[in-house]
Amino acid sequence: MNRAVLKFGGSSVSDFDKIRNIANTLKLRVDQGEQLIVVVSAMGKTTDQLMYNVSHLTHQPKDQEVALLLTTGEQQTISYLSMVLNDIGIRAKAMTGYQAGIKTVGHYLKSRIAEIDPSLFEEAFQQHDILVIAGFQGVNEYNELTTLGRGGSDTTAVALAASNGIPCEIYTDVAGVYATDPRLYEDAKRLSVVSYEEMMEMSALGAGVLETRSVELAKNYHIPLYLGKTLSNEKGTWIMPRTELLEKKAVTGVALDTHMVHITISYPKPSEQLYTALFKQLDEGSVNIDMISQIVNQEGLQMSFTIKDSDSQQITIFLQQLSEYFNALDYTINESYVKISLIGSGMRDMSGVASKAFSTLLAHDITFYQTTTSEISISYVIDAENGQRAVKALYEAFDIE
Amino acid sequence: MNRAVLKFGGSSVSDFDKIRNIANTLKLRVDQGEQLIVVVSAMGKTTDQLMYNVSHLTHQPKDQEVALLLTTGEQQTISYLSMVLNDIGIRAKAMTGYQAGIKTVGHYLKSRIAEIDPSLFEEAFQQHDILVIAGFQGVNEYNELTTLGRGGSDTTAVALAASNGIPCEIYTDVAGVYATDPRLYEDAKRLSVVSYEEMMEMSALGAGVLETRSVELAKNYHIPLYLGKTLSNEKGTWIMPRTELLEKKAVTGVALDTHMVHITISYPKPSEQLYTALFKQLDEGSVNIDMISQIVNQEGLQMSFTIKDSDSQQITIFLQQLSEYFNALDYTINESYVKISLIGSGMRDMSGVASKAFSTLLAHDITFYQTTTSEISISYVIDAENGQRAVKALYEAFDIE
Repeated sequence: MNRAVLKFGGSSVSDFDKIRNIANTLKLRVDQGEQLIVVVSAMGKTTDQLMYNVSHLTHQPKDQEVALLLTTGEQQTISYLSMVLNDIGIRAKAMTGYQAGIKTVGHYLKSRIAEIDPSLFEEAFQQHDILVIAGFQGVNEYNELTTLGRGGSDTTAVALAASNGIPCEIYTDVAGVYATDPRLYEDAKRLSVVSYEEMMEMSALGAGVLETRSVELAKNYHIPLYLGKTLSNEKGTWIMPRTELLEKKAVTGVALDTHMVHITISYPKPSEQLYTALFKQLDEGSVNIDMISQIVNQEGLQMSFTIKDSDSQQITIFLQQLSEYFNALDYTINESYVKISLIGSGMRDMSGVASKAFSTLLAHDITFYQTTTSEISISYVIDAENGQRAVKALYEAFDIE
Repeated sequence: MNRAVLKFGGSSVSDFDKIRNIANTLKLRVDQGEQLIVVVSAMGKTTDQLMYNVSHLTHQPKDQEVALLLTTGEQQTISYLSMVLNDIGIRAKAMTGYQAGIKTVGHYLKSRIAEIDPSLFEEAFQQHDILVIAGFQGVNEYNELTTLGRGGSDTTAVALAASNGIPCEIYTDVAGVYATDPRLYEDAKRLSVVSYEEMMEMSALGAGVLETRSVELAKNYHIPLYLGKTLSNEKGTWIMPRTELLEKKAVTGVALDTHMVHITISYPKPSEQLYTALFKQLDEGSVNIDMISQIVNQEGLQMSFTIKDSDSQQITIFLQQLSEYFNALDYTINESYVKISLIGSGMRDMSGVASKAFSTLLAHDITFYQTTTSEISISYVIDAENGQRAVKALYEAFDIE
C-alpha cells in the first residue's frame, strides 16, 4: 500500500470551502489506492485569536495553560476535515496529538517530539484510509498537552513521515521554494530541487518556507520532502540529498531575514556573574542567540547578539530584571537591522563567493555591520532599509537565474 | 482540608469579565482554607456555534467527530479560568476530562461516566488549591473523546463530588429551585430545601434546573447538593435526603414540560417485526420514550408515545425509514402538547391529590389527554395553549405558597 504524509497549514484550511476542496483532492488519491496521514494546523487566524483572548485575561499567562488552549485550534480542524471525509465516503479518523501518541519533551510552548509509536498508525490503517492528525501538539511525560512552537505542524508532519518511513508533502500558499522571496525580487526563480543542506540554511537564514528542524529531521531519516501549493497543479520543489543533485551552482538562493532583533550590552568589565545570569535566563526561556560578538577594551565589555523578534518581549523583560541586579548594565534593543544571506551547496567547492558578495554590497553603497559564514552560506547584517536593494544586487551578481 | 466541587455553566462563563469575577470569588474561598474542584462548561454559545459550523459541512456528521469538536469548548474555558486564577496567585491546574481520568461508556454524544479515579485528585491537590476541570466530557475505552450529552457538566460535577466524597455546588443564572417556573407564575416561591426524590421528579418532568441523572447520582452517593446563583449572595436551594426534611407538604412544586413531542403510530395489525425495528432504532439512537400507550381494535394498532423535542429530528428520520419498509405504517408527529406535573414527597402519604388536580383542571376547562403517576408525582398531557393557565390553577389550588 502506498502511503504518504500530507500537511496543510492554517491558511490552506482557513474556511470550510477550502476544507471541503482539500477533502475532495484527498479522495482522488485514496481512490487510486493510497493511504494517507494528513496533518493540519488551526484554521486561519484561530491561534492569533486565541492569543488575543489571552492578552485580555492576563499579561503573564502560564505556558502550560496557553498550550492547553492553543491545542483546541487543531483539534477543531481535524474534527471538521474528518467529518467531511467521512461524508464523501472516505474511511477517515481524526486523532489529536495525544491520541496519535506524539510524546514531547521540553518547554510547554516550544516542546520537541521525543517519540512517536508507528504501531498505532499501522493499527489505525487497518480500519481507515486517511488518518487526520492535529499538528503542532503533543503530550509530555506529565500527561500535559504541549505545543511544538513555530513551524510546529511541519515538524509533526515530518516526524510522522520519519516514524512511518514514508514521504512527506507540505502544502502552503506558495508553490515550493524560490531562489529568493518573490515579494523582494519579482523575477525570482522557483527551484525544482534543492538539497537538504541548502534548504536548512535557507530556513535558518529566514527564507521562511520551512523551519530548519523539519528539514533536518527529514534529512536524518532520509525522508523525501516535497513543498507544493495547496489545491494547485503547479509543480513544487523536491528536497533531496545533495549527492543526488546533478549540477551544483555556487549560490542557489538569497534569503533575507527581517525577523531579527539586535541587542547590545555594555558593562564596565567582563563579569562571570553577568554571563551566567544572562545565559541561564536565555536558556530557561528557550531564547536562541544567533550571531554573537564581543569587544573588551578600556571602556569595558561590549557584547552584541541577534535573536528572533518573536523572543523580543521576553528578552526585554529579562534585560530589565538583569539591570536591576547589575546596576552598571546598559543595553540597547535595535530592530532596524536585517540579515541577508547567500546559500549554495557549491559554495564549499568554489572560492571567491565572499569577496564577490562583499564587493557587490560595496558597489551598491550597502554597509554591513557583522558577517558570519557556514560551510554553505554567508550572511551579512545590514540596515533594514537596504534589504530589498541588496537582494536584487546579489541575485543578479551571482546570476542565479 | 475542606473541599467542595463547584460547577459553573455556560452562561456563567460567557465572557472574560465573568471568568475574572468567578476567579476572584474562588480566591476568597481558597483564602479561607478551602481546596476546590471547579467544573466549567463551554463559554456562552460556543457549543451552539460549533454545531452551526458542523451544519455547514455535513448534514450527517459522525458522532465521534462531533464529540471531538465539542470538547474543545470546555478545554478553552478551563485554560482561561486557570490562567486567571494563577494570575491572582492561586495554585490552579486545568485538566481536560481525559486528564482528570473521567472514563465514559456508551454513545459518543450521550456517554455516561463509568469511572473516576480519585487518587489523581488527591495527588493534584498536593501542588494545587483549585483544579479546574472540563465538564461534559470524558474518554472511552478506545481512547476517544466523548461528551456526556444534555446537562453533562452537572453530571461531571456530581460524579467528581461522589468519587471524592465531597459536597457539590451548582451555580447557574437562577437562584435555586422554585416551586414552579417564575416565568410561568410570577409569585412562585423559591424552595430553601427539597428532597432528592422531589428534585429528580421535577427534573424528569421538565423543571429543567438539573438533569435527573445528576440528582440521582448525588442521592446514591449521599452527596449534599446545592443550587445557587452565580456571583450572587442570594440564598439558593439545598437538596438533601427526604428523611431530613421536617415538614412534608403534599405538593412541593409544579413543573411544565414544553420540550416534548407526541408521536402516534398506526398500523393495520400488531406486528412483532414493527415493534422490534422501532425499539431497536430508538435504542441505538438513545431516544428515550416517556409516556407510552397503545390501543388495538378492529381498525388495527394505534400506539402513542412522547419523547424529548431534542430527539425530534432523529425520530423523523427513523419513522421515514421505517415507513419505507412497512408500507402500511402511518404516523403523526405532534408538537402542540405539553406535560404538567405536580411533585411532592408528601404525596405518597396523603390521598386525594389526583382527584383534586383532576377537578381543578376540569373547573378551568382544561382537557387532558394522557396521565401518569409515580410515587411522588402526577402528570397530565394537555394542550400547549393551556400550559401557563394550568400552572397558575394548580399552584393556587394546592396552596404551595
